[in-house]
Amino acid sequence: MQASIHVSSAPSVQYLLRIGDTCLILAQRLAEWCGHAPMLEEDIALSNMALDLVGQARAVLTRAGKLEAELGGAMHDEDQLAFLRDERDFRNLTLVELPRGDFAATMLRNFALATFLKLLWLKLERSSDAELAGIAGKAVKEARYHQEHASDWVVRLGDGTEESAARMKAALDLLWPYVAEIFESDDIDEQASAAGLGPRWADLRDDWRAEFSDVIAAARLTLPADRSFRSTGKSGRHSEHLGYILAEMQSLQRSFPGGVW
Amino acid sequence: MQASIHVSSAPSVQYLLRIGDTCLILAQRLAEWCGHAPMLEEDIALSNMALDLVGQARAVLTRAGKLEAELGGAMHDEDQLAFLRDERDFRNLTLVELPRGDFAATMLRNFALATFLKLLWLKLERSSDAELAGIAGKAVKEARYHQEHASDWVVRLGDGTEESAARMKAALDLLWPYVAEIFESDDIDEQASAAGLGPRWADLRDDWRAEFSDVIAAARLTLPADRSFRSTGKSGRHSEHLGYILAEMQSLQRSFPGGVW
Repeated sequence: MQASIHVSSAPSVQYLLRIGDTCLILAQRLAEWCGHAPMLEEDIALSNMALDLVGQARAVLTRAGKLEAELGGAMHDEDQLAFLRDERDFRNLTLVELPRGDFAATMLRNFALATFLKLLWLKLERSSDAELAGIAGKAVKEARYHQEHASDWVVRLGDGTEESAARMKAALDLLWPYVAEIFESDDIDEQASAAGLGPRWADLRDDWRAEFSDVIAAARLTLPADRSFRSTGKSGRHSEHLGYILAEMQSLQRSFPGGVW
Repeated sequence: MQASIHVSSAPSVQYLLRIGDTCLILAQRLAEWCGHAPMLEEDIALSNMALDLVGQARAVLTRAGKLEAELGGAMHDEDQLAFLRDERDFRNLTLVELPRGDFAATMLRNFALATFLKLLWLKLERSSDAELAGIAGKAVKEARYHQEHASDWVVRLGDGTEESAARMKAALDLLWPYVAEIFESDDIDEQASAAGLGPRWADLRDDWRAEFSDVIAAARLTLPADRSFRSTGKSGRHSEHLGYILAEMQSLQRSFPGGVW
């Protein structure tokens, strides 16, 4: 069994892990639809989006590993970061680790996250880190497509049949409390922003809310009231679901270090 | 629960189902690696190949459904053909429904099938059916890439460590008996060939064997002796594995007809 690695607590590294891990874990949840989507066309669309997200995760984790080495730490590649970190060292938003749910929940989560990621990548295109800026330039196009695809489904289902509207409303009630975490800023955010690496996530809240609300209104849904509950995945305190995702994702690599079995 | 559909026994339709179903079921097996590949790079590569195959299946099944209607039968779309046929109405090669096995077995099967599909698509580019010829023109490029990717791995593992060579040899012994089915021709083949729809699969055997043998030799492996056992998936008599694949793939669509849950 391969030993776990630990990663630098430097704010810049942590900031990148939040992005890379959020993309990676969301990709795992979308990949669960491979071969299970209700239409071949959607199977292909969801799988393609999962692939975009794995690609983004891979690029950002690669950069995080190099940055760590530049700061005097160990050098880890993207596979080590994906497969050899323990749960508490993952920095994804709790929102992405929740079970995939039904198609309504999948599409609503995708819409919320694609809208956020699009806004984030747009800022990151002007990052002081040239490699990150390059990653963002490609990723923003993908996020834009993911946002369009998901928003079409949110409207189609929310403003659809009685059944589809009820399911979309249930998805909104379920997921809404986890949205707040996205826009909470902390020291890591502040320092990344001060260094020009990327924006404070709190500064994306208003734009996100405007775009999200428009689509929710078009879907004839109502935003739930804000709640005091705060999820904490960005700080490494995860829901009970992440452990299962990692067990599945990491088992092969941990059992056969560097191997392919 | 949605009722099953049955499909025309016309040779041209059956010929297309053999191709579409083989691509579709192989895609399911490759998609099982989503989130489970030993490296992020391979996760992406295998998922991309699964997507190519679903795309090919979708195109060929769409054409099969239209052809059925042109012949005076019912019109079925690609989703109905994928999700509403019973096991005995699937026409994929048995080879593709075998469990994915380890990475060596996955790569060897991919290599065998990509080599076959490449040769098949090359012939189908000159099909009397213009739509099929168009599908083939795109698919042949994808199959060529799949073949290159898989052959690299077959050589790397076969001519690798003691462990990897043993696993590749085991994969070859396991899969080899199922290869013969690919190249058995029957009435459906003969009639499709006479109509100019596509080649007799038996006519692809020699070219396939030449390409396959070259790579097996480069991998320092030896072709097993031919066996009298013949698998029969092309005729709808499947191994015990296909039922499980279809149960997983079809459950959503059959439980919520036309829906997305």
